[in-house]
Amino acid sequence: MSYDVIDLNTTDDAMEHVFAHTALLHWAESLLLKVGVPEQRARVIADSLVVAELKGIGSHGLSRLGIYVERLKCGLVDANAELTTIYETASTLVLDAQNGFGHPAASEAVEMAIAKARLSGACAAAIRNSTHFGRAGYFAEAAARQGFIAIVTTNSAARMAPWGGKEAAFGTNPLAVGVPGELEPIVLDMSTSAAALGKIVLAEKAGTSIPENWAQDREGRPTTDPKLALEGSLTPIAGPKGSGLALVLDILSGLLSGAKFGRDVGSLYRDFTQPEGCGHFLIVLDVRAFMPIDLFTQSITAYARQIKAITPVANERPVLLPGELEQQCEARSRKVGIRLQHAIYQELIELSEAHGIDFPAPLTKAQPSAIV
Amino acid sequence: MSYDVIDLNTTDDAMEHVFAHTALLHWAESLLLKVGVPEQRARVIADSLVVAELKGIGSHGLSRLGIYVERLKCGLVDANAELTTIYETASTLVLDAQNGFGHPAASEAVEMAIAKARLSGACAAAIRNSTHFGRAGYFAEAAARQGFIAIVTTNSAARMAPWGGKEAAFGTNPLAVGVPGELEPIVLDMSTSAAALGKIVLAEKAGTSIPENWAQDREGRPTTDPKLALEGSLTPIAGPKGSGLALVLDILSGLLSGAKFGRDVGSLYRDFTQPEGCGHFLIVLDVRAFMPIDLFTQSITAYARQIKAITPVANERPVLLPGELEQQCEARSRKVGIRLQHAIYQELIELSEAHGIDFPAPLTKAQPSAIV
Repeated sequence: MSYDVIDLNTTDDAMEHVFAHTALLHWAESLLLKVGVPEQRARVIADSLVVAELKGIGSHGLSRLGIYVERLKCGLVDANAELTTIYETASTLVLDAQNGFGHPAASEAVEMAIAKARLSGACAAAIRNSTHFGRAGYFAEAAARQGFIAIVTTNSAARMAPWGGKEAAFGTNPLAVGVPGELEPIVLDMSTSAAALGKIVLAEKAGTSIPENWAQDREGRPTTDPKLALEGSLTPIAGPKGSGLALVLDILSGLLSGAKFGRDVGSLYRDFTQPEGCGHFLIVLDVRAFMPIDLFTQSITAYARQIKAITPVANERPVLLPGELEQQCEARSRKVGIRLQHAIYQELIELSEAHGIDFPAPLTKAQPSAIV
Repeated sequence: MSYDVIDLNTTDDAMEHVFAHTALLHWAESLLLKVGVPEQRARVIADSLVVAELKGIGSHGLSRLGIYVERLKCGLVDANAELTTIYETASTLVLDAQNGFGHPAASEAVEMAIAKARLSGACAAAIRNSTHFGRAGYFAEAAARQGFIAIVTTNSAARMAPWGGKEAAFGTNPLAVGVPGELEPIVLDMSTSAAALGKIVLAEKAGTSIPENWAQDREGRPTTDPKLALEGSLTPIAGPKGSGLALVLDILSGLLSGAKFGRDVGSLYRDFTQPEGCGHFLIVLDVRAFMPIDLFTQSITAYARQIKAITPVANERPVLLPGELEQQCEARSRKVGIRLQHAIYQELIELSEAHGIDFPAPLTKAQPSAIV
């Protein structure tokens, strides 16, 4: 890979939190190995978190590592659990993650579903007894890169109230769709909440207010006070639409898989009395069961051109395909490094020291060999 | 079915636009037969439109009949087209509606997909060369009533701009999900636009303004003027999320099926130079491939109880499941009749007279035998 000198218009001092993604990947993998995660799984978890950082999605990046390690040490996750098949047909899989890490479970499920879809054209897989799996888009993209369309979702601890209700009933259940593209895949990855919980936590720490449509207080009233919002619940996107979407995604991920669902899903951060027990759900479609792959590639290229030909509202901001902004960020970060927020950097340093692992040195402007 | 005297607190005069759904169904079917639609297809189209009226979704009800008949007479729809299989695998179907009516094509596709899902657990079907199919939820509900989970979508003529763009690039592509319930199925049916086009047309006729987030003018600026909105484009729900969702639904319905997609889909109302050529896409999952049906029913009952136990924000408005409001409306309308808006009533009377068919007599308070 070519290397560009980092162009942040800064001195070396300001580079202190910029790292080569390869160095962060190696570090995260080493840390997971140290706490007993088998090698291949450590690689998947580390890769998912570092790819999130590359794409500029820090909410699903290395800041998650601390809680994963903490729950593992508390015995709330089994690093050695084997993903087992409970039931299968030609085009369906019911899998049990047996309380292992969600990332490798979902990753393996995607490959199993692809193997079935190669034979039968389509496969749906439901995974029970799992844990936080990071970005849903990670798995949708993995399938798309192999020529498959994938729909991926998961449930999570209740933080969002159903439309017209006061208390949280389901998670901010995301929906990801990956489609093979001409060069890069098209990857939609959206939560069903108006805003991420993390943004409200940040506003509370900063003492700022939040927009009115992000959350409601305990009485179901819209609030701009992040403290009241955190005591209350998140607002779904588009009112009853987002609420209904989160609900059916919970049914697919949680109920249909035989996992926990609704208010019973354990919280990653707030509940140390039980495993999360969440569920994932995915559908994989073999493009070749619908049309020759060449024709599909031609069509998707034509589709992308149509969208890119739309006149932008702001001249300097062309219309983008789903996932394209993140791909641009990733391409740049692979060359110039990943900049960690100071608070995250501190967390990772502490985690590193606590486990006797060297944290990588930051990049410098004069260090072209850091990324290869 | 039991019969309740219509309780509209009105005189017989105010009943002039209230009709038994059975009478409207018979009338719509007769009209379609008269213009040459084969019997079984006429029944499906009429049923879909009348069920929409029963559910209180007039936008997808009998007001559509006029344009269907008009396009048929112009030779833009082939009432006798046979749905043909282009390609199939164990779990996929690529179907060609051959420019027939969308309702019977999608209805038949659901049954074909269910037959495959019974054997392989899941089936995805893509339909090309189709026309407006009414409510996506109609087909999702049909599958759910047979014990299958169904995801149904369609594309349509471009009326919505992608996030950050000035011109429309895709339709208000709906997403419907049907899930078998304890008694009634759970049916989510949502468009990806903030508001239905019909509401903006109504506001223009009434000379009222529209909320700021419904539409944008030709320059991509949010507008409250329905006239500028109709020259411009509709706004997706939740910004980039709704825009991305509409785009991937277009890829599934239009591109993957081999139908028209994006800006090329013909307009039902505005383009009499070409067939619509739209596409539909659906996935059917056999619940029994995931768990015994008894366990599923127990779980979905528990799920519904959890949601219904959430404290409502407004005491008199309990939290509802997706589709429940429409089911309540349907149950009531089956007993007390369907009230047609005056403008729709006039349209239907004219359509009826033009084709020499008797329009049904309205219900009266003293006419208990009208609905059986």
